Order: sequence, then structure tokens, then C-alpha cells
Amino acid sequence: MPAPFSDLSGFRALLQGLPRPHAAAQAAARDRNAQLTKPPGALGRLEDLAIWYAGWRGTARPVLERPQVIVFAGNHGVTARGVSAFPAEVTVQMVANFQAGGAAINQLARAFGAEMAVHALDLDRPTADFTQGPAMTEAECVAALATGLQAVNPEADLLVVGEMGIGNTTPAAAIACALFGGAPGEWTGRGTGLDDQGLAIKTQVVAEGLAANPGRDPLQVLCALGGREIAAMAGAIAAAHALRIPVILDGFICTAAAATLARAAEGALDHCVAGHASAEAAHRALLSQLGLPPLLDLGLRLGEGSGAALAIAVLKAAVACHSGMATFAEAGVSDC
Amino acid sequence: MPAPFSDLSGFRALLQGLPRPHAAAQAAARDRNAQLTKPPGALGRLEDLAIWYAGWRGTARPVLERPQVIVFAGNHGVTARGVSAFPAEVTVQMVANFQAGGAAINQLARAFGAEMAVHALDLDRPTADFTQGPAMTEAECVAALATGLQAVNPEADLLVVGEMGIGNTTPAAAIACALFGGAPGEWTGRGTGLDDQGLAIKTQVVAEGLAANPGRDPLQVLCALGGREIAAMAGAIAAAHALRIPVILDGFICTAAAATLARAAEGALDHCVAGHASAEAAHRALLSQLGLPPLLDLGLRLGEGSGAALAIAVLKAAVACHSGMATFAEAGVSDC
Repeated sequence: MPAPFSDLSGFRALLQGLPRPHAAAQAAARDRNAQLTKPPGALGRLEDLAIWYAGWRGTARPVLERPQVIVFAGNHGVTARGVSAFPAEVTVQMVANFQAGGAAINQLARAFGAEMAVHALDLDRPTADFTQGPAMTEAECVAALATGLQAVNPEADLLVVGEMGIGNTTPAAAIACALFGGAPGEWTGRGTGLDDQGLAIKTQVVAEGLAANPGRDPLQVLCALGGREIAAMAGAIAAAHALRIPVILDGFICTAAAATLARAAEGALDHCVAGHASAEAAHRALLSQLGLPPLLDLGLRLGEGSGAALAIAVLKAAVACHSGMATFAEAGVSDC
Repeated sequence: MPAPFSDLSGFRALLQGLPRPHAAAQAAARDRNAQLTKPPGALGRLEDLAIWYAGWRGTARPVLERPQVIVFAGNHGVTARGVSAFPAEVTVQMVANFQAGGAAINQLARAFGAEMAVHALDLDRPTADFTQGPAMTEAECVAALATGLQAVNPEADLLVVGEMGIGNTTPAAAIACALFGGAPGEWTGRGTGLDDQGLAIKTQVVAEGLAANPGRDPLQVLCALGGREIAAMAGAIAAAHALRIPVILDGFICTAAAATLARAAEGALDHCVAGHASAEAAHRALLSQLGLPPLLDLGLRLGEGSGAALAIAVLKAAVACHSGMATFAEAGVSDC
């Protein structure tokens, strides 16, 4: 596991020391790909994914057998402002649903052979309303980052992080706006189903949050405008990088968490692919800012890691083809 | 199994008598979907897919446990004209690769739990060069349709049909152009990797084929401009419809086969979804003509059923969520 940290400086140091992929393994994977029994390039993005995955796993012919899905849950003081179509108690109810195996993410994890973990972060202590000051103290943010870091199974060979937190597209919009600029309305969407009036309130709340928290250092943005489950996702994504475990990013909230890392340290997301483009309006813009083209585009906007869990299948397919196919020489097939 | 047929009229009769989905099961599935523990619509296209699948399977809470992948192979007289980057002997070499488990489709079928069958159709007797007259006699076409029909496992609960046939984007382009009009060049692409000169020759060959075979009845187009593996895919897709087995369409060649059915009988493809948009230029246009939006868009252009096999994962995910998730009442979660 990566070294523990006790303050934000310690986490910054972790980000500055993240490893690069294995260049030799990546080159060997590229060479193998060119010999497989298919026309050059005919497997499209599956080929790029397999080569990228091989680089992070450090072998030209990797396997993908132990994907892990972690769902982090948190509550948000800002829900008191009416930013969600669902009441805040749904967070704890859905955590129980995850634990009982009844949510969408449970079915997806099972369908694609992923182990699943659920971490509820102080649900009885919502973050502070960020329109009145920072959502979290530095100590609270660091604790959430550490929870995320510790949640990663070092034996996993692929990681999906997801979230549950009623109201959490609001902090995600505030983070995206703080990091990338533009008007609050450009980053604010309907979440689980806000009407026009709710959307207007939410946009106003994001604007107030940005005004009340003027700092723009990416990790301070995470503390001031984020939430515990958002910081935990950031911690888990960073830990996976340290462990050379590739990550599939989920939707808008997960990507906002990841964006704080990308802005804090160059290359911090090189071990990540975007699992899907969410129907939440600003997700596509956020992925574009990060240079991460989505694998899937099926109109999902559920969170929980669901879009990324669906993309586990794409990664599995890519690795299965790459490592399982015969070469032209092995199969006695004429090359072009 | 659907009734056998001995001529094209018999196959036409089969197409005219195809069943509709179960309206009651579909309605019950829609009702169940509205009660699942997620915001309304938050699973996007997965929700539509599950409801569609439920209608064809005749139950509100279906399972998807026995997908079948069938790969049909055929050879084409038109390859003598230089329409492919690969030599014609690759067809039989790749059939051996399928049988040995070394091709991309083998890895994908295994990854998603599909049984796989391979049918090589008279590889030592290529179809006639369609620039000189019909590629197949009616009897040859009917035999290939029947091979496709008989290849479908009636116990399967999902079908993918794929193909292998060096040169077969040429008949596919000719079929698409014959059915939907436009210039031959609009339907002709680079296949496995033609250069500019090869593409010009291929476009000319398609134009000559259309001129040499002026009939535009969809099933006569299939005989005159198709190939054995293309007709076999059409036969399998029709048989699946008769058996209420949903089908995932693959790329350009598979979709061209399906298009002949769509033009021959209204609703003939109602049991089909488009698995992906191929990188072969005209596939997107063909899907658009058929009103079938693709599930995936990952730049694949391999054939073999590979894009559709990848989309098995999407269908599995949709059905797993739909049939496995808890309702709001079961989970004690507050509805919005």
C-alpha cells in the first residue's frame, strides 16, 4: 500500500511520487497486438485499452480477473437548500440496499465478476453547507482521503469507484466550476431529476458556494466544495495509481473527484479511462477538459459506479482478446 | 423450430408470419422498471433494453443465461477482382482459427458466457462474380438461408450472428446500395484495409454488380448480390424472430443481411438491436436507414460477430439490473 499521510501535504507528496506505466511491457504488448489474427486496428479502441492495461500491469500478456468496485457514501449539508429531487435519508437507505445486494451496482458487479465493497462515511454527520464556508475541514477531508486509500484491495487488477450521496451533483458542479472556470450554470444539471425551479436553486447554491470559498488550489477545492464520498473516491483513485491498478472512472461526481487529482499533479489520471458519458449535462464537458474520451454512451445517470462497472466488460473483452488470441504464425493464417 | 422451406416463396411466407412481442409481458416489465431502486430513467438505454427483451421473452422478469454466437463463413467470386487487402484463402484459415479457439470472437464468446458455433458454407465453391450475373442461384441462396435457420439453438435466449468471408464488404455494399439507393461510392469502404486504388476498384466492382443484377426485390438482391454467409445470417436472424430469441446485430455485413429482411417484411427486425457502429464507413448510414441506434461505438471493424458479442455484456447488464434489483418497497427506500 502507498505510505499513509496525516495531512494534505502528505497526500500532495503521494501525488508527486506516483509511478509511470512500464514502458517495456507496453512496447511488448504493442508488438504482440500487431501479430494477432485480425487486420491491423480492426479491434479499434479494444487494442489501445489492452496495450494501456498491459503497461500498468507490467506484462505484455496481462489477465483481468479481480476487478474491485468500491461505493463510498456521504451526506451533504447543502441538501437543506433543496438541491435534490430525493430526501437526504435516501443515502443511508441506499447503503442498506447496497449491503443487501439490491441496487443496480450489485447486479453489475456480480454480472462482471467484481468484488464489491461499501464504505459509508459518517452519514450522521453531513458536511457543512458550503454556501456558509468550507464543506469540510482539512482534517475531515484528509480522513476521507485516507478511507478511500485504505479501501483499495492491493490484489485487485482493476478498480471502479462509485458513490451515493443525495445532493452530490451540487458539490461536483462546484468543484468543476472552481477548477475549470465558466459560469456555475454551465456545470449544473438536473441530477436525479430536478425540475426547472430546482435547477435554478441549485445553480444559485453553486454560485454561493464558489463565492464563499474563494481558494482555487485543487485539493483545497476538494475540502471546501467536496464531500466525504468525493474525497474518498479521490483517495482511492490515487492509491490505485500508486499500486498500478488501472481505474475506470464513472460519471460526473466520480470524474469531479478525479479532476482534483489531475489538477494537483500532472499525469495523476494516466491510469484511468472514462467508463461512460453520463446523461448529467456537464459530464461530457468535464471529460473533455480532462482529455478522457468515454467508452460507453448509454444515457446512464445513476452514479453508484454503475457506468464504470458496465465498462468493466469492455476492459475484460479487450484483455481477453489481446492475451487469448492466436498470432498469425500460431494459427497459420496469411498476413496481409 | 420454424417450418422448413424449399424455395424463396417459402422463406417469404415465414417472414410474413413472424410473431410480435408479448404486449402484456412488456407492460409488466415497464411497470416493474418504474418500481426499482433508482431515479426514473437513470439507467438510460439499459431500461429500454430490458423492457424490450422482456417482451420478446414473454416474462416481466427475464433471465439471460444462454447466449449463442454463430459465425458463418463463405467465399466470394468477386475477390478475383482485387476487392480485399487479404487473399481469399484466409477465409478457410480463419475458420480453422475459430475451430481452434484462437480468434477474437472465441475470446469474446468465452468472456460473456456464450456458446459458439461455426458454419463454413461451401468454401471450395465461391459464389459467382456478381459483375457477370447473380452471385447465387435461387437454390444456392435458399440452401444458405436454411443453413442459417437450422444453426439457431432453439434453447438460446440471445443470438449473435457473425461472418467471415474475404471480400464480403463488397457484396454488403452492393446490397445496401440496391436496397437504399445512392451512389455505389457512398456504400463502399476500406474493409480490412484497402488503399485508395483498391477502394476505387471496389467501388467500380459494386457499380458493375448493380448494373449486372437489375432486380430490386430484397430477397432477389440477397441472392444476386449477397453470399452464402450473408444469406445464412439472414436465415438465422429470421429463425430467431420466429423463436422469439432477441438478436444483436454486428457490423456492416451482418446489418446488410438483416436489411434484406427489413425490406422484405415490415417489423422483421423488431427483435434486433444494433450492437455497435463499425468503423466501416457506411455502417452508420445503414443503421440509420433501419432506425437502429448502435449500443457501442468503439471503432471495431473486424466482423466475426465481434461488436455484437461485446454488446452481449450490455444486454446482460440490462437484464441483470432489471430482474435483480430491489423495488423501493422491498428495500425500504423513499421514492421521490
